[in-house]
Amino acid sequence: MSQRPTIAEIASEAGVSLPTVSRVLNRRPDVAPETRQRVQEVLEARGYLKKPQRNLPKAPALKLVDLILYGWLDSEFYGEIVRGMEEVLVPAGVRLVLSTMHRNQQFVQDWHARLAQHAPAGAIFLTADDGLAFDRLGKLGIPFVVIDDNVPMELDILSIGANNWRSGLIATEHLLSLGHRKVAMITGWPSHRDTKGRIAGYRTALETAGLPVDPSYLIDSDYSMEQGYTHTHVLLDLPDPPTALIAACDAQALGVYRALYERGLRIPDDISVIGFDDIPTAQWMAPPLTTIRQPLHDIGRVAAERLLHLMAGKTLEALRVELASPLFVRSSCAQPPSQQR
Amino acid sequence: MSQRPTIAEIASEAGVSLPTVSRVLNRRPDVAPETRQRVQEVLEARGYLKKPQRNLPKAPALKLVDLILYGWLDSEFYGEIVRGMEEVLVPAGVRLVLSTMHRNQQFVQDWHARLAQHAPAGAIFLTADDGLAFDRLGKLGIPFVVIDDNVPMELDILSIGANNWRSGLIATEHLLSLGHRKVAMITGWPSHRDTKGRIAGYRTALETAGLPVDPSYLIDSDYSMEQGYTHTHVLLDLPDPPTALIAACDAQALGVYRALYERGLRIPDDISVIGFDDIPTAQWMAPPLTTIRQPLHDIGRVAAERLLHLMAGKTLEALRVELASPLFVRSSCAQPPSQQR
Repeated sequence: MSQRPTIAEIASEAGVSLPTVSRVLNRRPDVAPETRQRVQEVLEARGYLKKPQRNLPKAPALKLVDLILYGWLDSEFYGEIVRGMEEVLVPAGVRLVLSTMHRNQQFVQDWHARLAQHAPAGAIFLTADDGLAFDRLGKLGIPFVVIDDNVPMELDILSIGANNWRSGLIATEHLLSLGHRKVAMITGWPSHRDTKGRIAGYRTALETAGLPVDPSYLIDSDYSMEQGYTHTHVLLDLPDPPTALIAACDAQALGVYRALYERGLRIPDDISVIGFDDIPTAQWMAPPLTTIRQPLHDIGRVAAERLLHLMAGKTLEALRVELASPLFVRSSCAQPPSQQR
Repeated sequence: MSQRPTIAEIASEAGVSLPTVSRVLNRRPDVAPETRQRVQEVLEARGYLKKPQRNLPKAPALKLVDLILYGWLDSEFYGEIVRGMEEVLVPAGVRLVLSTMHRNQQFVQDWHARLAQHAPAGAIFLTADDGLAFDRLGKLGIPFVVIDDNVPMELDILSIGANNWRSGLIATEHLLSLGHRKVAMITGWPSHRDTKGRIAGYRTALETAGLPVDPSYLIDSDYSMEQGYTHTHVLLDLPDPPTALIAACDAQALGVYRALYERGLRIPDDISVIGFDDIPTAQWMAPPLTTIRQPLHDIGRVAAERLLHLMAGKTLEALRVELASPLFVRSSCAQPPSQQR
């Protein structure tokens, strides 16, 4: 019996056809469970397959947490945050269930409909502002945290994010310290609190320096690369164009760079650019982008830690956690052209 | 009774403290379920809270599919694929459970340990080559698909991806058609079949044109932006540097662009660059990147569709699905300097 049996012998012994043995060997799913079982037993008995290990350690129960996004999980920005979450959740036996809504109303309705019947152990909203969802989760007693600055203030919702006022202040102060007096800001969604916070920081920096706020230097956008591109062209067409640009995020700064490239303007010799986020791409831009780092990884970690506390039934005092955003100086900012020599 | 009751009246009627009513109203999770229930009933009876809708449509059972990555879900590349998957899976009542391994051996072991006790309805491997996992899933009868070109050929594993040989061929032929004769390729991981396929396509194009393959023009890398940067400097330091560079992916082309910027070389006037993938960033690079589009969104859709077929117990004939990768011509390639006028 030291010789390995043929597949035909196995098939005969198990009372099945030869292709069925082949399908089991090749781990195809299209075999009835009882047939698979019988063939595998013969294969193992005849030394054709090693027995699967049966002494694996008992794993603790898996908890599922919904990760809710209204757009798409398709950027380095979200990826860094999710990475931080997983580092905390996975060792705690918690898994994230992707609940990406794709701005699709049907997806949102399905998620709401399923909530009561398949209640997750918790939920994390990533840049989401859905009062109805918050309300339903609250009524069902499902703990959740929000990574966004736009949650209704009157509700005791736990939110985590960067300090946007401070970010706007630091970015503007850095450019002013280099000698710029004509600083434009392409902002995020105008109705959002994070955008309002950054604009307020920008104004504070200008006013502290005794400079007026020129409304034509403040342009609303949506964080996209495309709007970075188009708004840069608009700003350069002003009668008195700015000498420095603050983009709404690093990804948008790519669009800004492309517009400047098309105009034949050199960064930072002719014009300075600063971003927000410090996504991995920022250091590989040409020239490398000076930016206000958002501690994305830490934001993900803290959100996950807070959620685990809530899931354990603990009370949390602070309802808003804001993480510091340091300035990362690279090569995209310099003195304005008039002061260079 | 038309007047709205005070919170104190609610607290008195429910027999709880005032802060407890406040916690229920504010949807804090730190309230015992029976207390929450009692307070909510009083709140609803007194018209303070609307009754939650009880007539939501019955949702079908939710199926969970593990999405397995050995690295991190932190790029536009992965995001586009996952987006395609979700468009197919969500309407089918299937949710993706993030099983990102972060190259952490403990995470991998935990996932293996949990598999038998918390069997998912299926699994999708995203650029993963884990024979042990394939084996365990096969034995448990859990259907799975792999988005990668490196699955063991001897197993009947269903894999989905781009045709890499064709991609390498198209990229090289495009540069040859512009007149380049010194074309370098920075490749992906050298042991991977997708890398081998692209190199084979590169060689085929050169040999078809009657050109020799210069080994110093073929450099192994790991798809990172950093290696795009360092290897470009290496290539430019050759005694006879190339006039065109093929990067392993668009993200890596950012590193290539930065190295060329540091050398003062203009794209495409002094040197041509071509990428792979067509991530959203590619069109916003300066200049916009010519690339071989990977149909990432479609790859995600097809992988999800195949998996749903397997989960429904259907037999699939084809074990490898490859999607076509068209060339997207933008502005990063031109004739070599010697032929420009």
